[in-house]
Amino acid sequence: MGANMARRLHECGCPVVAVYDTHAQSAAVLAEELGATPVLSLAAVTAAADVIFTVVTDDAAQLGVFAASGDSLLIGAKGKTFINCATITPATHIEVERRAKAVGAVSLEACMASSIPQARNGTLYLMCGGERATFDRVQPLLANLSTALRYIGETGQAAQVKALVNMVMNINTAGLAEGLGLGHALGLDLNMLREVFAQTGANSQVLKTDGEDMQNRAHDCYFSAAHAAKDSGIACQLGLEAGLRLPLAEATKMQFDQLVRLGLGGLDKSGVTELTFKGRHA
Amino acid sequence: MGANMARRLHECGCPVVAVYDTHAQSAAVLAEELGATPVLSLAAVTAAADVIFTVVTDDAAQLGVFAASGDSLLIGAKGKTFINCATITPATHIEVERRAKAVGAVSLEACMASSIPQARNGTLYLMCGGERATFDRVQPLLANLSTALRYIGETGQAAQVKALVNMVMNINTAGLAEGLGLGHALGLDLNMLREVFAQTGANSQVLKTDGEDMQNRAHDCYFSAAHAAKDSGIACQLGLEAGLRLPLAEATKMQFDQLVRLGLGGLDKSGVTELTFKGRHA
Repeated sequence: MGANMARRLHECGCPVVAVYDTHAQSAAVLAEELGATPVLSLAAVTAAADVIFTVVTDDAAQLGVFAASGDSLLIGAKGKTFINCATITPATHIEVERRAKAVGAVSLEACMASSIPQARNGTLYLMCGGERATFDRVQPLLANLSTALRYIGETGQAAQVKALVNMVMNINTAGLAEGLGLGHALGLDLNMLREVFAQTGANSQVLKTDGEDMQNRAHDCYFSAAHAAKDSGIACQLGLEAGLRLPLAEATKMQFDQLVRLGLGGLDKSGVTELTFKGRHA
Repeated sequence: MGANMARRLHECGCPVVAVYDTHAQSAAVLAEELGATPVLSLAAVTAAADVIFTVVTDDAAQLGVFAASGDSLLIGAKGKTFINCATITPATHIEVERRAKAVGAVSLEACMASSIPQARNGTLYLMCGGERATFDRVQPLLANLSTALRYIGETGQAAQVKALVNMVMNINTAGLAEGLGLGHALGLDLNMLREVFAQTGANSQVLKTDGEDMQNRAHDCYFSAAHAAKDSGIACQLGLEAGLRLPLAEATKMQFDQLVRLGLGGLDKSGVTELTFKGRHA
């Protein structure tokens, strides 16, 4: 995601001055492509740029790049702006904002509800949380990445909305996988079944994006089962903290967790059909 | 449903000659409205008409009107055509076809994936199962009721597809109720949240039809929670027979069963939010 966002910004005439990746070789290749400096420390990223995008995997990685000691984006960060794009917990966004403020920097969460092609084409759905003034200031920059840019509210709220979007999307995905899997077991024509679903109360966005892939067992990864497990987990945790019982979200998390346990976490989320179609994995 | 289908057929110039209901008074009122005869026995319906529509509540009721002894639609049924519109198990449709054939009648299943307004306006989504010749013969009649009429396959298959449609629809409904309920618990603006859902992978037909009602606790009944429980139950049973594990469908059935246990089965299916919004029923 990060590489494609950088390519897009470069293409739009925004100078990408430094790139960093835990795999130094990946950073070097991308830096050469974009005419940027491949830097070998987080502190060097902050030194080189006014606005720093982070796109990491999980809470630990996000807190790691904003570490209070050792190599960190926070070193020399006074006056810098951090834009954090990972899908992580609201609490982590709040903690990162606190750490950034403590060194005189500002941070914004920019949660993406889209995938790699949208990053490359500048058509991300971007939901931002943080101070309104920060959002207003970086809006022209973010507009290069997004055709649907919206300010949600204070830091943490965009991550909450993102967790809810993915929670509902994952439920609909796991549910559709059951519907098509049962249709298959009953010997129904799945082209017909998908057509009927599309014309009735069973219709959904994931039917459009994942239905045919589920039928054809085409699970090239756009949004991995492992990410689905993580995001549904974030939502379940928020539910637990709120004292809510969320049986569908929990059942969905268990399905994606099961894919991960089976070593199938790298499949696209549509791969949940490995659990619901007879003669596939199960 | 049955009354509104009769009104629509009457309006289209199809003579409705007899109406029967287990509540004789309901039949009498409708018969007067349509200039039909309010009959007091099932046998009298068959005697009066060439084509007989049945719209009943469940398997027991469907088998009851086609009883092998006592008052029954099968009495004097030679050459008659039965069109059975209830959402019931595939096995019951197959049994009804067997009983009809045994007395020289034919039957067709016509499963409706729509609700009362569509019945009244002739815009039902009708999926038919049975012999193709029977479908072709009654197609002009059914076209008065439906703007989306399709032949699915042999008897039982339309009920299978219908069960799958409602299973997936109910999963999406129960999942959406969790997403909005958690959003509410987190203090998010639900208008904003529904808008984001609509623009992302969380979008679904039930978001369009039920989202606002869930937010506003407006549960006037179009498709009841009790029906949702029944239909998800049919799908779960098909899954069990096929040896499939369907955790989302099962969790959904448990939610709608719970509504029924709480005496809330008469609410619209959107009323599943009574279980997922703090400060509502739970």
